[in-house]
Amino acid sequence: MEQNDTHWADTSALAPPPWLHPHSSTLPATGAWTPGDPLGQRQFMKMAVDRPFVLEGGGQLHDVTIAFETWGTLAPDASNAVLVCHALTGDSHASGPAGAGHPTPGWWDDLIGPGRPLDTERWFVVCANVLGGCQGSSGPASPHPDHLGRYGPDFPVVTMRDIVRTQARLADALGVDRWHAVIGGSMGGMQALEWGVMYPERVARLVAVASCTAASAQQIAWWSTGRRAIALDPKWRNGRYYDAPPGEGPHAGLALARMVSQVTFRSDDVFTDRFGREPVESLAGRLELWQRFEVERYLDHHGAKLSRRFDANSYLLLTKAMDLHDLARGRGGLRAALKRITAPVLSMGITSDILYPEYQQRELVTDVIAAGGSATFHEIDSPHGHDAFLIDHQQVAAALIPFLEKPRT
Amino acid sequence: MEQNDTHWADTSALAPPPWLHPHSSTLPATGAWTPGDPLGQRQFMKMAVDRPFVLEGGGQLHDVTIAFETWGTLAPDASNAVLVCHALTGDSHASGPAGAGHPTPGWWDDLIGPGRPLDTERWFVVCANVLGGCQGSSGPASPHPDHLGRYGPDFPVVTMRDIVRTQARLADALGVDRWHAVIGGSMGGMQALEWGVMYPERVARLVAVASCTAASAQQIAWWSTGRRAIALDPKWRNGRYYDAPPGEGPHAGLALARMVSQVTFRSDDVFTDRFGREPVESLAGRLELWQRFEVERYLDHHGAKLSRRFDANSYLLLTKAMDLHDLARGRGGLRAALKRITAPVLSMGITSDILYPEYQQRELVTDVIAAGGSATFHEIDSPHGHDAFLIDHQQVAAALIPFLEKPRT
Repeated sequence: MEQNDTHWADTSALAPPPWLHPHSSTLPATGAWTPGDPLGQRQFMKMAVDRPFVLEGGGQLHDVTIAFETWGTLAPDASNAVLVCHALTGDSHASGPAGAGHPTPGWWDDLIGPGRPLDTERWFVVCANVLGGCQGSSGPASPHPDHLGRYGPDFPVVTMRDIVRTQARLADALGVDRWHAVIGGSMGGMQALEWGVMYPERVARLVAVASCTAASAQQIAWWSTGRRAIALDPKWRNGRYYDAPPGEGPHAGLALARMVSQVTFRSDDVFTDRFGREPVESLAGRLELWQRFEVERYLDHHGAKLSRRFDANSYLLLTKAMDLHDLARGRGGLRAALKRITAPVLSMGITSDILYPEYQQRELVTDVIAAGGSATFHEIDSPHGHDAFLIDHQQVAAALIPFLEKPRT
Repeated sequence: MEQNDTHWADTSALAPPPWLHPHSSTLPATGAWTPGDPLGQRQFMKMAVDRPFVLEGGGQLHDVTIAFETWGTLAPDASNAVLVCHALTGDSHASGPAGAGHPTPGWWDDLIGPGRPLDTERWFVVCANVLGGCQGSSGPASPHPDHLGRYGPDFPVVTMRDIVRTQARLADALGVDRWHAVIGGSMGGMQALEWGVMYPERVARLVAVASCTAASAQQIAWWSTGRRAIALDPKWRNGRYYDAPPGEGPHAGLALARMVSQVTFRSDDVFTDRFGREPVESLAGRLELWQRFEVERYLDHHGAKLSRRFDANSYLLLTKAMDLHDLARGRGGLRAALKRITAPVLSMGITSDILYPEYQQRELVTDVIAAGGSATFHEIDSPHGHDAFLIDHQQVAAALIPFLEKPRT
């Protein structure tokens, strides 16, 4: 082999270009927010733990911090509080510009703010980074309380129920007995539904967009390929990469996981309209294996971008939490679980969503009603696929706002 | 990090199980058929090359071998010859049992054989391993003519047109002036369509199942994630892995590429019906990151299975060939290309196909007719997704057989 390497290396048609293994230069091993980084708009709730926080999966945490942001002012009777729950790679920064401490602008910036649909002159809006995340809440990239390193692979498996329990503690700390509404899209919708089942008396309205009552086999299949992509990256080092020098983190694996999910987040139509078969390099000359079409450059861009601001271990944990999402688990079935929900449910589905197909959002409505509850369906008619809940704000707002205004009967 | 590794390794919740990096034992570095392996039913055509075989992409081959199989007897007037073209991970073994030299049973075994729909007592059926493949035809795993090693990454980019040109040479060698039909599904359908455009006088009927006139952006996106999975595997070694010891080939990368494509080959419905949320290990005990649901075990199984019988560099080359597939390229547009087709076209689409959606097969019919040709559409109503062309033989046969019988007008 060595002989061939020497002889043929320069003429190789299959030899990969540098972008195949991105960020080999100065990038920290994790994109996680780390104590000492700019706080940005973050606030922190350090959970009082006189005893360990025992997770649904059996793990224990001796130290739990939740990073969150708020917009607006809590009314004296605490009646105007709205909890917004973020999706897989979101964080507490639901509104506001990018800047120090916030690598991205608010993921629902068009929806949340003064004079915006979710008007923060009226509502007190809260968004918390999920447990297991990487933007300030306790997660694999957090300092381990018992030694100088990070948790890394010793961070236990978390579930939506664990995440919601920390959010309930946050509600306590904020003085919110009952949310006017809990709202979320995708993984955020899973949290919203768990809120309704776990704390029916603490939530007056539920909004789930492009979500599900339980992960389907296909959803598990997609997320599991992402986990295997990270594990395939030798720089993942079984999850112990935090002390690796710059450029030596599992960026390529995380990027590949993102690339796969990015395809599921969009749609055939949008890819055709936006990229078609446009090549980056002309196809008129010599054809090479690693030449790209524009759609590949787009995927590479999104993969690289996520790996700069996310943590590979958090990606593993949170995709697993989504796969484990099942309102029915341990509750005597789905109907029994849904019977606990007292809040009216607004379920929104996206016509072109290939990851959380619209039928799941329609089934949620049918199932809630079958369990004796109240639910309505709103269709987001969009070509943008799953990501429409982050793009088609006006359609989201058109259903969300009247739902928030409607008095509970 | 070293300290943590020592201290925490045994308690790690994220630590990966052995199946994450499969085949670390005795598996050859490539699953390719290699000279010296049992021939099975293979025959070989060594192309007479008095000058180099120049590929569409500009590469040159000084030595081209095509492995093929035949069933039935060629009629004296050579009028009963049918060419069947295989899909990405297929090979010349379209019919017959698995056995020495053939890791899998014929991929259309239920369709091809004596008394079967494509009756080999009547038809002379031919299937050739594609150029760039790994089951006997020249490809990256083939011995390089100029040195003792294999081509590896020095094998040039191939296109559908190159593949079809070698098949035309095979037709010459077999004494077939004109195929009664050229038939293929998925990548095989791309070849069939190229046959119609490149050699209109040499093909009397064309059948394309679950294929396309040009790869869409979404298709390119899917295949490109597979290529990146292989490149991410450190054992891929930039394509020079053939001399690696057993267990040191890029099996994990190839397996991951297959896992992603396996999801696109099937459907949400079938995954739900077959796997649902069934876990491999009970979810009642402690939850661990690398516990699997049955659908994950299924994907792992298919990934591992392919990596035992395929070659990672062939996977790179052939997925690139599919991405480059575009009947219109260099021909003044799609209509001009389709105008060259004189054979009637039978286009079959699968209702649940998420990879090559049915609308593409319907568009093919519209486009051929718009170009002045003759085309008919047949719908395969199946929940099995793209793979239905390999599963729902009766539906394929129901349209295929009358089409073959119909005299050309």
